[in-house]
Amino acid sequence: MSAIPIDTGRREQVAAALRARLPERSVLSDPEDTRPYECDGLAAYRQLPMIVTLPSNEDEVLAILNVCRELNVPIVPRGAGTGLSGGALPILDGVVISTARLNRIVRVDAYARTAIVQPGVRNLAISEACAQYGLYYAPDPSSQIACTIGGNVAENSGGVHCLKYGLTVHNVLRVRVATIDGEIIELGSEALDAPGLDLLAVFIGSEGMLGIVTEVTVKLVPKPATAQVIMASFDDVVTGGDAVASVIAAGIIPAGLEMMDRMSVRMVEPFVKAGYDTDAAAILLCEADGTALEVAEEIERMTRVLRSAGATAIAVSQSEAERMRFWSGRKNAFPAAGRISPDYYCMDGTIPRKKLAQVLTGIEEMERTFGLRCSNVFHAGDGNLHPLILFDANQPGEFERAEAFGAAILALCVEVGGTITGEHGVGMEKINSMCVQFGRKELDMFLAVKRAFDVPMLLNPDKAIPTPHRCAEFGKMHVTKGALPFADLPRF
Amino acid sequence: MSAIPIDTGRREQVAAALRARLPERSVLSDPEDTRPYECDGLAAYRQLPMIVTLPSNEDEVLAILNVCRELNVPIVPRGAGTGLSGGALPILDGVVISTARLNRIVRVDAYARTAIVQPGVRNLAISEACAQYGLYYAPDPSSQIACTIGGNVAENSGGVHCLKYGLTVHNVLRVRVATIDGEIIELGSEALDAPGLDLLAVFIGSEGMLGIVTEVTVKLVPKPATAQVIMASFDDVVTGGDAVASVIAAGIIPAGLEMMDRMSVRMVEPFVKAGYDTDAAAILLCEADGTALEVAEEIERMTRVLRSAGATAIAVSQSEAERMRFWSGRKNAFPAAGRISPDYYCMDGTIPRKKLAQVLTGIEEMERTFGLRCSNVFHAGDGNLHPLILFDANQPGEFERAEAFGAAILALCVEVGGTITGEHGVGMEKINSMCVQFGRKELDMFLAVKRAFDVPMLLNPDKAIPTPHRCAEFGKMHVTKGALPFADLPRF
Repeated sequence: MSAIPIDTGRREQVAAALRARLPERSVLSDPEDTRPYECDGLAAYRQLPMIVTLPSNEDEVLAILNVCRELNVPIVPRGAGTGLSGGALPILDGVVISTARLNRIVRVDAYARTAIVQPGVRNLAISEACAQYGLYYAPDPSSQIACTIGGNVAENSGGVHCLKYGLTVHNVLRVRVATIDGEIIELGSEALDAPGLDLLAVFIGSEGMLGIVTEVTVKLVPKPATAQVIMASFDDVVTGGDAVASVIAAGIIPAGLEMMDRMSVRMVEPFVKAGYDTDAAAILLCEADGTALEVAEEIERMTRVLRSAGATAIAVSQSEAERMRFWSGRKNAFPAAGRISPDYYCMDGTIPRKKLAQVLTGIEEMERTFGLRCSNVFHAGDGNLHPLILFDANQPGEFERAEAFGAAILALCVEVGGTITGEHGVGMEKINSMCVQFGRKELDMFLAVKRAFDVPMLLNPDKAIPTPHRCAEFGKMHVTKGALPFADLPRF
Repeated sequence: MSAIPIDTGRREQVAAALRARLPERSVLSDPEDTRPYECDGLAAYRQLPMIVTLPSNEDEVLAILNVCRELNVPIVPRGAGTGLSGGALPILDGVVISTARLNRIVRVDAYARTAIVQPGVRNLAISEACAQYGLYYAPDPSSQIACTIGGNVAENSGGVHCLKYGLTVHNVLRVRVATIDGEIIELGSEALDAPGLDLLAVFIGSEGMLGIVTEVTVKLVPKPATAQVIMASFDDVVTGGDAVASVIAAGIIPAGLEMMDRMSVRMVEPFVKAGYDTDAAAILLCEADGTALEVAEEIERMTRVLRSAGATAIAVSQSEAERMRFWSGRKNAFPAAGRISPDYYCMDGTIPRKKLAQVLTGIEEMERTFGLRCSNVFHAGDGNLHPLILFDANQPGEFERAEAFGAAILALCVEVGGTITGEHGVGMEKINSMCVQFGRKELDMFLAVKRAFDVPMLLNPDKAIPTPHRCAEFGKMHVTKGALPFADLPRF
């Protein structure tokens, strides 16, 4: 909760200007009403916004942008608020634009295999709307029941199937965007390539810094005829990590390739009863999808590779119900953590696949260094880790230790050639880690491109891309502890 | 050839500054030496450059950029010069940076499946260098024997396999770039996603306007165990076009899906003896690759779909030699055109797949309107057309008619929801068509992003993105003919 009070005079001025241009009940300024918007999925950070707006159409979005530009008010766009990096954290003197009322599926074109939807449409609602044509929208973040396509565009969301089917950027064809200048631009096209600069790719994953999306054209893919999943057990995590590399090296691209370590398995099993091997040090879930023949062949090949990579036990789902049960454990790993630990901190980093074993060993060492447990669940196929650091916020110092543990994991990811985020974005949470990931020249280039879209720098400012000042402060913070920058992070 | 003479004083000044910072024989300023650089694959446009530079390493690239920035000299980067849209067309008072000497394969990592190469390395040389590991670099433009990876990055090149394996943007992980400020930045990473703005995607296809690439990290993929290709005949092009849609609608993503109309087939067959059906109005080539079982199943499914879509004859390659022969006809379509027509103009547009039949009919009508023949060869699977307009430059007015015919095809592409380029880029050739494709707001956004990378606007200026002035002139050109802009282009 914010300690600094909102300037009520300013609030009334901006609210009045917004109310003059918007229908009734589209502008919330009473703290009672704006309280639900004070955080997103990264609930450790909270800030009551000055005002929340709820536009119902593109013209209302433009009206809000015009008011904010004229009055120099910073803007934070917000989908379902399920983001895990604080990208939708409000600003004390800012306006939140909620896409909650922009929730219409405009058109499904089964022939062209596209759907045009407003940004507030839920991820899963798209697949539900095209199920009748045997089509679905591929990216499936864990939050897909709740999260919106606008938020997916902002964060370039992935999911357990993104190894085979790609991230949001690979599944969105076009966006309509309201700019801070109060104009509408369209980025992308239904064609495979587009002339001009690929601003669609820049926009996807830009965390609300470049414009407000008002419409999204997504690609739909045919639902595979069938799917089966293998659960393979390993005696140690390093062997499991190497097995992932072996599957990929064999030229197989599984529809899903997930790994869970013993702690995750033991956390989940009593809760979900997925049928997991609780004696294994790690399990792999490897899915094949396609026609019955394709699936049978791929399952057979994967089984062979996993066995020779050292799997101690292998189970293959024998029915759709069993397949869903195998997945339910993985999908419920985060809620399960809540049952055994008062608090948990879900990290998100990406590493080259071949470094899996090294990073897992590193995280094990960090558990001792920081005196906290960490369970590992991850999209192994694309090297996207989701370490869950368990802590108790009521124990003095544990939250800080958890944060330092998380930063150390990210530093290790960068050290082995990976990145500080896989699919959760930078937001507020990892803005300091961006100073570790990038040099000043790259960060300046990011800011220059942001300025090309947003001259007054009002769109979700101070998120995602650190300013030189911020990186200098971050560096100083470390230097003042008597060491060089980052030298106080554990090295491996 | 340029009618305007180069200012020799200026040339000597710039050449001297360059020679002071570069090794001997890296700076060409004598017209005898610079003549080979006066055009690229779009040979109808020619311009002798003021100076050509041949850097051998990154430091020399930076030195050239520093001199050009200090002396305000525009720069045109150049790979093998195989580009078809004039992207490497020199500038009268500009410097060409040739990547010919930046031709080292730095490292192949078979385990990570990546290769790090300098920009002047030929596309096919990458695959040759990793053949020993059973890996290859997937994008295969027709010019792959000659064209360079730097040029592929500039144009976001595709090829006959890009439907399944993606364009350059999907196969490049990282680029090192020398900026106009004389700095080195790295865009992208080896991870699936990267934090910050996706400037890698913006850079790929940016036609040399944002920086000079000095190193490229590409993704390698395993060579499929086997492949087979179907040749299917159709009685009319519309049925053939619809069959393409049916294959895709059946959920099949062929490794290649190419279409040739009767004129292309008859042009090619006497020359290549590919075994094509010269009685068909159109033929489709549909390739399956993968394991033997996968290929057998996909060939069987595709055969079924093609038959029920109206194929009159179907032949399946029975050996690798036959498969190569089927492809050789397609790959030699352009040289074959040279045998039956003094000149030809290869267009490149992209349309939604479902509009194939409509656009083919439109092009047929245009043949009558413009009094020129057009043979159609295209990447049907991804809707990327390559109409070959045949003409004789020695007949007065034919070149102009061919250009107008090409512009009309592109206008039709835009009208049906497609784009003015598939994989050849905008360059010089299509800069006016960009005014048809985009509104001023989008073009201004492109220019703003260009300016973020290139404040002095020296990198390949006046290519790819038209200025407001240029679009105004283009509009006026059409208006002065007594009609609204573009109204003098044939409409369908």
